[in-house]
Amino acid sequence: MKLHGYFRSSASYRVRIALNLKGLRAEHLPHHLRKGEQCAPAYLAINPQGLVPTIESDAGDILTQSLAIIEWLDETYPTPPLLPKDPLRRAKVRAFAMVLACDTHPVQNLKVLARLRQLGLPEDEVKAWAAWANREGLSACETLIAAEPGPFCFGAEPGIADLCLVPQLANARRFGVDVTAFPRLLHAEAAAKALPAFADAAPERQIDAE
Amino acid sequence: MKLHGYFRSSASYRVRIALNLKGLRAEHLPHHLRKGEQCAPAYLAINPQGLVPTIESDAGDILTQSLAIIEWLDETYPTPPLLPKDPLRRAKVRAFAMVLACDTHPVQNLKVLARLRQLGLPEDEVKAWAAWANREGLSACETLIAAEPGPFCFGAEPGIADLCLVPQLANARRFGVDVTAFPRLLHAEAAAKALPAFADAAPERQIDAE
Repeated sequence: MKLHGYFRSSASYRVRIALNLKGLRAEHLPHHLRKGEQCAPAYLAINPQGLVPTIESDAGDILTQSLAIIEWLDETYPTPPLLPKDPLRRAKVRAFAMVLACDTHPVQNLKVLARLRQLGLPEDEVKAWAAWANREGLSACETLIAAEPGPFCFGAEPGIADLCLVPQLANARRFGVDVTAFPRLLHAEAAAKALPAFADAAPERQIDAE
Repeated sequence: MKLHGYFRSSASYRVRIALNLKGLRAEHLPHHLRKGEQCAPAYLAINPQGLVPTIESDAGDILTQSLAIIEWLDETYPTPPLLPKDPLRRAKVRAFAMVLACDTHPVQNLKVLARLRQLGLPEDEVKAWAAWANREGLSACETLIAAEPGPFCFGAEPGIADLCLVPQLANARRFGVDVTAFPRLLHAEAAAKALPAFADAAPERQIDAE
């Protein structure tokens, strides 16, 4: 299996954690987003959005969109599971993940921030925009799991919620968000980061880290 | 079942289509987004993001995030299926849906456009932003299904890809995007709109339509 990614991309980071939790190995093929390598014609041919990550399976199948990749991993390599079995619990976990993967991360990704700069927004307002998107998403997530005992987002084992949360908290800190406002999320993050699957997936441990 | 929504919300529109395809009835509880009704404390108590849709099941369970709701509907009421059975095909369908639900719609939703206005962007640039987000997402989707025979996005039956596509194309037109650039998407849209499940879910047929 090959993983096209970028060390700092939080969507790539999610897939790295999922691969590690499943005990799967992938060849990492970095694309330097700040240098625009994701817009090379050869890459656009497999990922028409010019985004990372993309998975190439051993059979040569191409998979895009981090959550679609992670659901595929979970269906294809079911142990350990990344989603609970009960449909209602699955919906709760997916909703948490999607608050981050749909409503938070895409609003503060490189492409959107680059467009804000093109529109003439000064750097402090660009950073404030990214901080705002992170704060909105993480606040909702804090509420969604307020009554969940933990230590992970949804129970005693890590899953899709946790592998979206850890990269998003890293982004939030990078944009200057005061994450101490989210004690329940920090509790889940600490439990996750104590696991090698999460620690080994961290941006600073990747072959393209700067 | 109760569906908290808004006639023009494309995320609510997706869930309306899914309910119709499954032959399920829901009581529609409209929240007027432009009047800020989604920020009323009683609504925030069930949806901390202040977004629509939210489902209240007959058992009183609360479900948020349109794609998480739709996966739950598909798992709970499996006929007709909204996703294929094969994991690889499921990943392709989910990736298409997520190009729209993650990378397109949230970048052009009311909340983001309101913030652009707050930052002093003139109305024509706000509209150009929304058009850009739609064009980027729909262009990628056009490529993703270029080799799919149709008539729907992925084969002979409608599913999660189609119920994300139809509302997004409506948004794209509203923001002045030339959708004739996407012939394969328009082909799928025409097949979908010919079905009562899609036609009855259209914004203009809802009780809160203006």
